[in-house]
Amino acid sequence: MNEDQVARSAQLALLLEVSAYPKPGNVDRTHDFVDTTYEHFIASSVAVYPVFREAAVRKERGGVGELILRGVEESMKWQRGGNTHFGAILLMIPLVMAAGAADSSDTDELRRIADGIMRNTGVEDAIALYRAFSVAKVRVRRDVAELDVMNEASIEEIRDRQLSMFDILSISASYDQISRELVGGFGKVFAYAALINEFTASRERRVNDAIVDAYLHLLAEEEDSFVRMEFGAEQSRYVKERARGIVEGGYRRDELEEFDRELIAAGINPGSSADMIAAALFIAILQGLKV
Amino acid sequence: MNEDQVARSAQLALLLEVSAYPKPGNVDRTHDFVDTTYEHFIASSVAVYPVFREAAVRKERGGVGELILRGVEESMKWQRGGNTHFGAILLMIPLVMAAGAADSSDTDELRRIADGIMRNTGVEDAIALYRAFSVAKVRVRRDVAELDVMNEASIEEIRDRQLSMFDILSISASYDQISRELVGGFGKVFAYAALINEFTASRERRVNDAIVDAYLHLLAEEEDSFVRMEFGAEQSRYVKERARGIVEGGYRRDELEEFDRELIAAGINPGSSADMIAAALFIAILQGLKV
Repeated sequence: MNEDQVARSAQLALLLEVSAYPKPGNVDRTHDFVDTTYEHFIASSVAVYPVFREAAVRKERGGVGELILRGVEESMKWQRGGNTHFGAILLMIPLVMAAGAADSSDTDELRRIADGIMRNTGVEDAIALYRAFSVAKVRVRRDVAELDVMNEASIEEIRDRQLSMFDILSISASYDQISRELVGGFGKVFAYAALINEFTASRERRVNDAIVDAYLHLLAEEEDSFVRMEFGAEQSRYVKERARGIVEGGYRRDELEEFDRELIAAGINPGSSADMIAAALFIAILQGLKV
Repeated sequence: MNEDQVARSAQLALLLEVSAYPKPGNVDRTHDFVDTTYEHFIASSVAVYPVFREAAVRKERGGVGELILRGVEESMKWQRGGNTHFGAILLMIPLVMAAGAADSSDTDELRRIADGIMRNTGVEDAIALYRAFSVAKVRVRRDVAELDVMNEASIEEIRDRQLSMFDILSISASYDQISRELVGGFGKVFAYAALINEFTASRERRVNDAIVDAYLHLLAEEEDSFVRMEFGAEQSRYVKERARGIVEGGYRRDELEEFDRELIAAGINPGSSADMIAAALFIAILQGLKV
């Protein structure tokens, strides 16, 4: 597909995701955090366009890690709110490359190419990813392999052990839903793209409400990795149960707004789920979603 | 300046402008019109990126009319809300070309180049502009020259009389503030860029509030051309006087919100002023505004 078509779809996904409200716990058009505002997300979405475009041109020819690093650098350069889109960029770069290489927006074709891109990553991709973590100041769990992302020593270790980006993310896949998508063939991203398109088409929801409901559906389906990492397992389980109640109750707006107020007050932001929905929206737009 | 730097600045300007709230009478992040929503403006802002980029690459080499037409076509293709950005695209394309050609964001250099681009327009630019009016379904006054934009006959007349885009806009400059900028050297756009940067810097306003206050300042300074055309001179004078009261009272938020409710209820949207502020924001961003 054409690179500007792909880059615009990816960028529109970021903008619609952050604009959708009320999105319990996260920044949306009606909620700023203290240091990170809605405008920071808008500027970051603008900033990454040339990197998405380059990724769509690069297609299957490698360089995933470097493109992720450049995307994160541009995002941080264009606004002063800190890390806004790390997870979304990480998840979307291989998908954007796949869309650039694909003849159509067919799910099987996109998934096959994106999975191939991830499996072909190498040591340099892993190192660039580590540098991107550091640029975005993302906290990452010291995992089984004791690879500390803030540490030059672990870059040495990646080289010594010849770990690829796919290897690194296979380790974090045990506790991080975004890593799980990246090494597992992007099943949830495509499932939620289909759900969003189903919501907007058959149930005649406004795009905004379709995004919010898909986000709640995901919160209800799996614990948010960011919440679990930052606030612990008890909180992430609670968020999941609370979301499940709202989904089972038919997505009532009053319940949803109360849940939003509660998470905002507690400062709990399910950021990984928002990143997943941004990626799903990208696929949904490629496959026909129109505002 | 680099084409992606310029295109991103132009796109961010469109997005910050439509997001700023409360912007009395216009679509913002908290207000949709019945057929045109905030999301339509977002999608349109995304849609025009490749055209802004092309304009920045094309620099002073002509084709203003065609680029405006392509910008409007892309804007209409990516969303179903109708005309969102006609005036902003019209005003910004020559400025984007000038920025692509300029060595710096210096006001004198940008104005000189943009003015040169407008004065070098030809018959083909005028015809493309007429086609763009028709694509966007913009209503235009039958002016002195009896050039009806919805009519193939007037395109014949443009050819017969060898009218350039500059000539056409010189006619409409008598009643349209955007035409006035385009043929008059963009004085107000640059003045409002300076005002916005002054508001964000010295008075420590949030970017959102700086945009809203600049918009009110402009409403208070000159009658909105769109309001005058659609609702008549009495209404456009009233809007101006009302805005003046708020500016002289120190931009009080409660007065501003009341004015917003009043215009929304009456369906009066000062669209030309919003287009002018979008162009001013583009210059302000080039000259250092950062979120």
